Order: sequence, then C-alpha cells, then structure tokens
Amino acid sequence: MSAKEIKQGKQLYEGKAKKVFATSDKDLVIIHYKDDATAFNGEKKGQIEDKGVMNNKIASGLFELLKKSKIPTHFVSHLNDRDMLCKKVKIIPLEVIVRNVAAGSMAKRLGLKEGTKLKTTVFELSYKDDSLGDPLINDSHAVAIGASTFDEIEKIKKITFKINDILSAFFLKRGIKLIDFKLEFGKTPDGKIVLADEISPDTCRFWDAKTNEKLDKDRFRRDLGNVKEAYIEILNRIG
Amino acid sequence: MSAKEIKQGKQLYEGKAKKVFATSDKDLVIIHYKDDATAFNGEKKGQIEDKGVMNNKIASGLFELLKKSKIPTHFVSHLNDRDMLCKKVKIIPLEVIVRNVAAGSMAKRLGLKEGTKLKTTVFELSYKDDSLGDPLINDSHAVAIGASTFDEIEKIKKITFKINDILSAFFLKRGIKLIDFKLEFGKTPDGKIVLADEISPDTCRFWDAKTNEKLDKDRFRRDLGNVKEAYIEILNRIG
Repeated sequence: MSAKEIKQGKQLYEGKAKKVFATSDKDLVIIHYKDDATAFNGEKKGQIEDKGVMNNKIASGLFELLKKSKIPTHFVSHLNDRDMLCKKVKIIPLEVIVRNVAAGSMAKRLGLKEGTKLKTTVFELSYKDDSLGDPLINDSHAVAIGASTFDEIEKIKKITFKINDILSAFFLKRGIKLIDFKLEFGKTPDGKIVLADEISPDTCRFWDAKTNEKLDKDRFRRDLGNVKEAYIEILNRIG
Repeated sequence: MSAKEIKQGKQLYEGKAKKVFATSDKDLVIIHYKDDATAFNGEKKGQIEDKGVMNNKIASGLFELLKKSKIPTHFVSHLNDRDMLCKKVKIIPLEVIVRNVAAGSMAKRLGLKEGTKLKTTVFELSYKDDSLGDPLINDSHAVAIGASTFDEIEKIKKITFKINDILSAFFLKRGIKLIDFKLEFGKTPDGKIVLADEISPDTCRFWDAKTNEKLDKDRFRRDLGNVKEAYIEILNRIG
C-alpha cells in the first residue's frame, strides 16, 4: 500500500501536542501535529500559531536525516501540513533526555547556572506518568517497575548517543547549539526498538551558537516573546 | 600507635548525627555519635535517648562483619560508648542507596505502595548537598558535575551490591528484612575507595520479617512511637 492509498481511521490517542490515528494499514498510524503548547506538566497551556505545521516539517526532516545514518525510527513519510505517516509502535514509558549543557530542570536540580559546561554528556530517564509528574528515575528504577529492561536501556542509550552526535553536528553547521533534547522510543510488533515521537523545538533546547538566543519552547515556557519566530528560524536554518 | 594512645584533637566537622574529631594520628579520626535525630532534610528535629551509644555499637558490629568479608571500610575500632576510631577519608559527595523493596521516597516518587516487590534491586545516587535537598541524580549527573567518575561509581556499585548481599543475609537470619539503606564512601589519601559513614537504624530500613513492624528511624520520622525500643531491638538481635 503506498502512502497515497492510506486511509485515516479512528483516533487512537490524543496527547498534549499530537493526535494519533489508526489507518487502513494495521501496522501504520497517522500522527497529527497540533498547535497546542503546554509546559510544566500541563500547568501552563497555550497555542503557537502553525506550530503543528512547523514541527511536522522539522521532525520529518530530522527523521529523514537520522534514517540516512541508519538510526531506526518510526517515521515513514510526511503526508501533508500536519500529518506524518509512521509505523505503529508500543511506546516505552520513558522520556530519554540528553544534556550537552546544563539548562532547565537539571540546572535547577543541581544548582547550576544555565549554560554551565558539563564534564560528560548527561543521559537521563524520566518515567512517563503525568499523574506522578514524569519523575526523574535511573535505569534500575525503570527495570524495577517493569517499564523497561537493562538490555533495552543499553540499546536505547547507544542509539541516543549516536543521535546526539548526528544532530549536534547537523545543528552546529547551521549556527545552532543543541543544548538538550528529549526522545521517546517504541517497540514494533517484532520487538525492534525504534525512535518514536518527534524531534522539534518542543522537545529540544536550541541556542543560537553566537548569541545564545533561545530558539525553542523555552520562549513559550518563560514568556520570552517571539515564540512562533523561533520555530520559523529553526525551520529556515534546517532549510 | 595503638588505639589506646590516640589523643582526641580538634573538631573537624559536625553533622546531623555525628561529630568528627582529628586525632594525634593524622590518618585517623574519632567519630562521635550524638543522640540528635533529624528527618526530611533537617526539617524535623528531635533526640532519641542513647541513640548515639546504640548506633555506635550497631555500626561497629556491622563494620566488623563487612571487614571479615573483605569489604574495605574506614572503621578501625570501637573506642567507647559514643566514639569510633576511623581512617580519615575524603567523603565522595554521593548518598548511595540500595532498595530491595519499595519504601520511603522511592515509593512516593513512583506511586508504589510501600512493601511492593521490585523486579530488580535498585541502586540510587543522591547528590550530598543540603541546600539542594540531596537531590536524586544518576551516574552521568555525578560525573557531569565532578562529584565522581564513572570508574569510581562502578567500583562503588560493585562494593555496594556485595554489602547488600552480606547484610541482607545477616539480618534475615535474625528475623529482619533489610528493605533499603544508605551508604557513603570516602577516599583514603592513597586514593582507595572505602565504605565510610555509618550503618544503623538511622540509615537503613529494617522490617521485622514476620510482622513487617518497622525497626528503624521511620518510627521517628512518622511518629510511630517506641523509637528507642526499635533501636534496642536491632541491637539485641545483632547480639
């Protein structure tokens, strides 16, 4: 079945920034990008005009880039302004966070000034559970509660560091520092672990390499203004 | 110099439950056990009569036990009711926590009922910094902020799991489940990593194996009564 013949089915899930629909192919889903923006575990809510369109474009471009580097992803194709065709996966309930520079919750937790250089790249896991506030956990917590296995986490870690290398280099060439980012992984029906969710200014911290100007959702979180413009800037620099 | 010839010098440090004094031997310190009890990062304060005497006895006994199993520790000898002679070490600013059963902060963080069995033993690190509330971190955070190195953490983890095996078996024979415990490690002047601090009902959760009655500082934290009696019970069972 080609992407053109795929018919959208019933809604399977609605998240804060996306909806997921079944399709006429049981192994594929349509991911629909919304303009809704939330922060602080949903405490702050708003809309960013055309965010869905921009994030769908940005994420599609980045998934294509990663695919070329043999990173397994759920991405199949960019369908239209707000829809992306993806493999249906079972999401592993972990937020996988990579931090190249101290910022956000980690800077606060460890009493570091934002922008502090780190002696090593930080690999962080949070347990995806809104009612618990997506708490920071470590690998043994994830295994202890049955969210994942040590073997899966090792695989995820390996893929994640490779993604960090690829994306950091890609953005630096475009005058952007990749400060940190959040990934989610899923399992295909045959048990293969693939990168899922999205990669966008919603899920990454992007700082202009020269000015350190924030070009990501922190502009919304912290009421810095020019929110839409930041997303446009990222889209333009990706080209 | 024998323990008898050691003279107490000036106070080097006062913590919540112990004081540390220099001695006439530059490589040795006297650790003095107080009756002060604190909980919730010092928010709750109190005294438990003779806690210092009991913890000094309990910790001395457990350090002796671990020494016999070739676990490197800072312990030299039990000097008197409240004083313990130890090697002078530089404390690594990490709280190392092992959890065999869900309880306390982990149960709360992960929404688990206390007493929930875990699919694997949990190894946890907190960054020892009262002003930050000793935040939970992972190994890459510890390295990123220069608190430790990956190599040191691997060594600490190995020693810690061995200690868990030894202590869990020791206490189970005495009708006590070792639910979780906190360790601290230090480095001797020649760079060797050794177990430091104390092991006592202040730093362990002990549950009676038959009744699940709490025999540790949770009796103080949670105002359960019979606080001193719990410490006496542990001391008696250790024998």
